[in-house]
Amino acid sequence: MNDSKSDFKSALSENAAEVTKMLDNLLPVIDTPEARVIEAMRYSSLEGGKRVRPFLVTQSAALFGVDRVSALRAAAAVEMVHCYSLVHDDLPAMDDDDLRRGQPTCHIKYDEATAILAGDALLTMAFQVLADPATHSDPSVRSDLVLALSKAAGAHGMVGGQMMDLWAEDNELNVAQITRLQRMKTGELIAVSAEAGAILGKASEDARAALHAYAHDIGLAFQIADDLLDVEGDAATVGKATGKDAGAGKATFVSLLGIEKARQQADMLSEQAAAHLEIFGEKGDLLKQMARFIVERRT
Amino acid sequence: MNDSKSDFKSALSENAAEVTKMLDNLLPVIDTPEARVIEAMRYSSLEGGKRVRPFLVTQSAALFGVDRVSALRAAAAVEMVHCYSLVHDDLPAMDDDDLRRGQPTCHIKYDEATAILAGDALLTMAFQVLADPATHSDPSVRSDLVLALSKAAGAHGMVGGQMMDLWAEDNELNVAQITRLQRMKTGELIAVSAEAGAILGKASEDARAALHAYAHDIGLAFQIADDLLDVEGDAATVGKATGKDAGAGKATFVSLLGIEKARQQADMLSEQAAAHLEIFGEKGDLLKQMARFIVERRT
Repeated sequence: MNDSKSDFKSALSENAAEVTKMLDNLLPVIDTPEARVIEAMRYSSLEGGKRVRPFLVTQSAALFGVDRVSALRAAAAVEMVHCYSLVHDDLPAMDDDDLRRGQPTCHIKYDEATAILAGDALLTMAFQVLADPATHSDPSVRSDLVLALSKAAGAHGMVGGQMMDLWAEDNELNVAQITRLQRMKTGELIAVSAEAGAILGKASEDARAALHAYAHDIGLAFQIADDLLDVEGDAATVGKATGKDAGAGKATFVSLLGIEKARQQADMLSEQAAAHLEIFGEKGDLLKQMARFIVERRT
Repeated sequence: MNDSKSDFKSALSENAAEVTKMLDNLLPVIDTPEARVIEAMRYSSLEGGKRVRPFLVTQSAALFGVDRVSALRAAAAVEMVHCYSLVHDDLPAMDDDDLRRGQPTCHIKYDEATAILAGDALLTMAFQVLADPATHSDPSVRSDLVLALSKAAGAHGMVGGQMMDLWAEDNELNVAQITRLQRMKTGELIAVSAEAGAILGKASEDARAALHAYAHDIGLAFQIADDLLDVEGDAATVGKATGKDAGAGKATFVSLLGIEKARQQADMLSEQAAAHLEIFGEKGDLLKQMARFIVERRT
């Protein structure tokens, strides 16, 4: 491992720890009868993975010298939306998954009703955190963050992507359709993560557009890498069931393009993503490494 | 029916029609593969009931001369949150209801996965609508609306109330606990509806507090009236299963206080609510009539 790669991994894991601490602060334990929903929210968000989206928020914010607490609060909000989507996607009526990051999913650990409510409450709290003056003193920044995140997460973004994914169970997708599906299902939230830093930093339209384009590319690369992991990984390393998409007869980038071409496509997107960051010079180095990390990860 | 009562009923139904039209505008039909989630959102929000919460938003906004479009957009946002909560509460894992307003519930009409997603997307869109500059030109107003609605809807508000309601299936509640439960489960969203007008109108703290106190009282009165309907109403009139709470052995205001005392309590709260509006003079008349309507309704 070379130094720059090890620096990146340290930065990623330090950031993940800070985001977890922020989530812990934002979700204090209570002892009233509704405590169970808070416990389930904590269960579903504190044992985080790599915290890829929060890293994009804080690193894009760092480009514009945004206050660290502001960035971490916005990062926690985006992660709450991500975690809520996992909780709901895992439900029996949806993907029916019992295992997530090697642990029982929320509805297995608690029950379905609690999992539905915990997801609802994580989504709701994300907007509460963004609209809180503690996140930024300028209300137009707060309002813009809410607008961008709600668009990315809603019926024309992540939720629409999940709906299209269910539709795809009975319909054969082509590459254009699966690209659209993945852009909605995972790409929009990744894109808004990188844009959040530009919003917090009141960056120029050019800078915001560059970050959006970067995130759009890594979002797609991320998904192709996921599909590759689904075929090549094993459950013990990945921490969830693998080979599932192929088993369900679902079209993926790998089933449509083949392993080799899919990997080439992911690599190309990763390089293209990094190119969008040239305008930031050396300050963009960690984000560039993120683009590489996303296609090289093995879990 | 005297004139004032008939004026109130006309105002309520005209407002409901306008809110439905706004929801229709905010949820345009699409023909892409994810169309099903939009259809389910429309199904769950356009066939509205009395639109009590939106009426509180627009009437409180009218006290401060707020632009009608602003008020209707905020009203639609609050109604989206209300409708999402009904869709999720009706799910098999929650209250398992097949019937709502005399029609099949969302998961019966569509399926469970679509109902979960439609609820998620309605909740998300509520915040998108509030954060949109079309709702108000002042970003601090938009941000405040998001903050107030998210607090009312989240783990310490509506979702927490629903969690406590599930907890109550295995625990006997006393009057203090059921009051807290209902304040969270339904009262907070009613309170924020009336407060929304004050936020939109940048009203004084006194005016906002008066509306909050008013809405707090009618929220509780509304719930007691609901419990009375559950005992006294019949399914054909109410449009949903009745006698259900008693059947489930759940404590209600009626089971704890008895019918007569519960009705007295509702009447008292209704009068107290109206008294909070004295500072608005005649302009508060429709809201005062709402306080009466809530305890006198038979559906």
